[in-house]
Amino acid sequence: MSAIDPSPHPLQIATRAPEPVAPAPPPGWQIALRWIVPIGIGALIRVFPVPDGVEPAGWSLLAVFVATIAAIIAKPAPMGVVSVIGLTFAATAGILTIDEALSGFGNSAIWLIVLAFFIARGFIKTGLGARIAFLFVKLLGKRTVGLAYGLAATDLVLSPAMPSTTARAGGVIFPILRSLASAFESEPNDPSATRMGSYLTNCAMQVNAVTGGMFATAMAANPIIVDLATEGEVQLSWGTWALAAIVPGLVALAVLPLVILKLDPPEVRESPGATEYAKSELASMGTLRRDEKLMLGVFGLLLGLWMLGDPLFGMGATVAAMIGLSVLLVTDVLTWEDIKAEKGAWDTLVWFAVLVTMAKFLSELGVIGWFSDVMSGAVDGFGWPLALAVLIGVYVYGHYFFASMTAQVTAMYAAFMGAAVVAGAPAFLAAIGLAVASNLMGGLTHYASGPAPVLFGAGYMSVGKWWTVGLVSSIVTLGIFGTVGVGWTKLLGLW
Amino acid sequence: MSAIDPSPHPLQIATRAPEPVAPAPPPGWQIALRWIVPIGIGALIRVFPVPDGVEPAGWSLLAVFVATIAAIIAKPAPMGVVSVIGLTFAATAGILTIDEALSGFGNSAIWLIVLAFFIARGFIKTGLGARIAFLFVKLLGKRTVGLAYGLAATDLVLSPAMPSTTARAGGVIFPILRSLASAFESEPNDPSATRMGSYLTNCAMQVNAVTGGMFATAMAANPIIVDLATEGEVQLSWGTWALAAIVPGLVALAVLPLVILKLDPPEVRESPGATEYAKSELASMGTLRRDEKLMLGVFGLLLGLWMLGDPLFGMGATVAAMIGLSVLLVTDVLTWEDIKAEKGAWDTLVWFAVLVTMAKFLSELGVIGWFSDVMSGAVDGFGWPLALAVLIGVYVYGHYFFASMTAQVTAMYAAFMGAAVVAGAPAFLAAIGLAVASNLMGGLTHYASGPAPVLFGAGYMSVGKWWTVGLVSSIVTLGIFGTVGVGWTKLLGLW
Repeated sequence: MSAIDPSPHPLQIATRAPEPVAPAPPPGWQIALRWIVPIGIGALIRVFPVPDGVEPAGWSLLAVFVATIAAIIAKPAPMGVVSVIGLTFAATAGILTIDEALSGFGNSAIWLIVLAFFIARGFIKTGLGARIAFLFVKLLGKRTVGLAYGLAATDLVLSPAMPSTTARAGGVIFPILRSLASAFESEPNDPSATRMGSYLTNCAMQVNAVTGGMFATAMAANPIIVDLATEGEVQLSWGTWALAAIVPGLVALAVLPLVILKLDPPEVRESPGATEYAKSELASMGTLRRDEKLMLGVFGLLLGLWMLGDPLFGMGATVAAMIGLSVLLVTDVLTWEDIKAEKGAWDTLVWFAVLVTMAKFLSELGVIGWFSDVMSGAVDGFGWPLALAVLIGVYVYGHYFFASMTAQVTAMYAAFMGAAVVAGAPAFLAAIGLAVASNLMGGLTHYASGPAPVLFGAGYMSVGKWWTVGLVSSIVTLGIFGTVGVGWTKLLGLW
Repeated sequence: MSAIDPSPHPLQIATRAPEPVAPAPPPGWQIALRWIVPIGIGALIRVFPVPDGVEPAGWSLLAVFVATIAAIIAKPAPMGVVSVIGLTFAATAGILTIDEALSGFGNSAIWLIVLAFFIARGFIKTGLGARIAFLFVKLLGKRTVGLAYGLAATDLVLSPAMPSTTARAGGVIFPILRSLASAFESEPNDPSATRMGSYLTNCAMQVNAVTGGMFATAMAANPIIVDLATEGEVQLSWGTWALAAIVPGLVALAVLPLVILKLDPPEVRESPGATEYAKSELASMGTLRRDEKLMLGVFGLLLGLWMLGDPLFGMGATVAAMIGLSVLLVTDVLTWEDIKAEKGAWDTLVWFAVLVTMAKFLSELGVIGWFSDVMSGAVDGFGWPLALAVLIGVYVYGHYFFASMTAQVTAMYAAFMGAAVVAGAPAFLAAIGLAVASNLMGGLTHYASGPAPVLFGAGYMSVGKWWTVGLVSSIVTLGIFGTVGVGWTKLLGLW
């Protein structure tokens, strides 16, 4: 090496293309603080006396769960690392046995999500996703908000017949959204995410939460809700639910893409020439290739099995997805190498399984029951409209502590409906209100429902942005259903 | 494009460096045949009448299991693809519910294996593995067989105190082996695998199967064996087991590396100058770096927890591994990116979970019990030495149908011991013979035991080579224990 290290000529530097600058890692003390604060919150919960009816292990698990969620928000390390540490702590401290701690990894809802990642890869790899995206662009013209309405219409049309919100938003909408964003050079985990991907993802999630609440068959836990309402002596038939929800639902679907336009404005709003561009791209793609045809066939098969598999053969959504993946693998549309390398799927498997496991045992160990009891006591003496509003609010925002709609519905729907009726609310209104609310909460957090981790895991936005849009959207949709919905059902004479 | 397509000048071709040639994919009809034959075998089993005591679903599952194993051998597609298809078929045909089908993914033994992959990555990434490897090379001189004995000695010393064979072979031996092979430019999934990696892997596996059989605490299922033997009125104390197995065990450990030297000869046998090379490499490495120190600390922690965690705190091997991984993640020795990208771990998770699940339900649905009954009837009327030999042979080679030593021990040990005693064999000899045999079978297949998929998954050899070495080694070790072991225990007056 030369002793003299001459500086490069100034001009040489100036003409270089600027290199992307990685954000400087935060200083060590800040990382330490991001660990210490969540642990402190957990420790604080732990030292509170255990309420009656809650098992001590349940209270300890609540402390670990809240600390884990706090660390996911503070982000001293990626979500996977935080989840592994949270679960390790719960298993080491004996709060959960190792079999309990790992039980989430055998959960079929989680594997449906993992499978949705693999199937989405097929849409991208074959180019079919891009082709569908260009068809959308050609049809819906030049505005990003138009694309959001196009995806919303797709979700709505599919929703009565596709009870898995994960299959709908994760398996169908997400790959199209992903390809659309890519076509407009908006990539995840990249500054370009805000060009379009982030906006469309937010719309897809919040729209999905609304469509889930519009039909008794539009979300996996909705049939459980119908059962529970029947036990509370309210007949919530398919037709009644749809009739009650259609008007406020359509209003919400019309309003949401506009609200999110303010909350998370996409940089690409209008794209003059997009229609022509799409046409020329479609022309250059030519006719469908072998792998695209197979992917399209599997897509059709999946839609068919998701709609008819359960009524005809008692086949669940996860088995249908396994069949779809098997076909893609046998025909070499996807290779095993693609599966092993699908990092997003393995990432999601780990952190979502951990959160679902914790939520399940919070319920089993009495924490959720205790929470519900506290709430029904708290509205004692309110007039019924206020009591119902408070109960629905607590029910929805209690979902910050849940990683599964099904878990919350199973654990809390009956208790909250009972509390509302005791407070004097009309039974039908309480039943349908909590039923719809069980869906509206699906976009609150990035772990709130099955599609949430798929859409979040794509990497278009931070946890903070997701939570902000989720919170505001929930206030908007609750407001619409609370006014338009209440008025509409009163007009129909349903209560 | 020009109408004339001139050939390149001959010299131009000749002077090009030869490009690596990928093996030509087999023709389509051959791939089809590799699918059809296993499916045919499964169909053939399925049309046989279901034996008494076996549930129809169990018989169907046997057909699927055998077809899956046959396809793993015929290899129309990677093992992961075959496993996914096998499981999808079982779930689609209603042989297993979706929850049953996915239950293996929550199995703590499988996660111990997955965690062993991550921890092994830490040894490689930090360079600590290479450093230990060079110490071995420096100590054990210039011959590959010397390295194999070095690894065997390490395994033997750890075995009385480390009941998880996966932790021992997968977590301790495998990373060192991996680094040793790399240091001699023998890489997995590469023609250079046969230089050294393949030989050392075979030795490590077969040695591990022997050390597991030498102490009551050297394999996870051995304590179960002690319990089952007690029920059969044989007291198999820790000291008695060790005393009975030490002499034939040491003979087997001395012989195996030489036998495998014939079966899978490493290309690198002698490496003159290796000691000097290792010394200079160690010198250039300098003192331990931060990440190496942390890795060494975690290694010590893991050894401590694997040895003392269970007796002191009732902590299982999987929780200990989770703690180790958590420390590596918090200290940034491993990043979450490393975990997501650890393809071998995710591959193994899928195919091993599928096989373990099938084996578990074969047992639950009566197939294993039926198999055991058939065998005890078959040796009726033999003299006891022949009956015992046949029973041990059937027990060991029946393990081709098992993906877990624990599953086979739980399902079959008691039945086989009972059959041997009824046939007139001395109870102690039957008990210790089947106890040791329960371990010797651990290297038969690449799914025979916990360490097998870790060592196989590394990618140093084909299924065919593994099975050949596994079969011959099992004959050698059964022969040694059947002669030296029987004689030694008779000499001791144990039967």
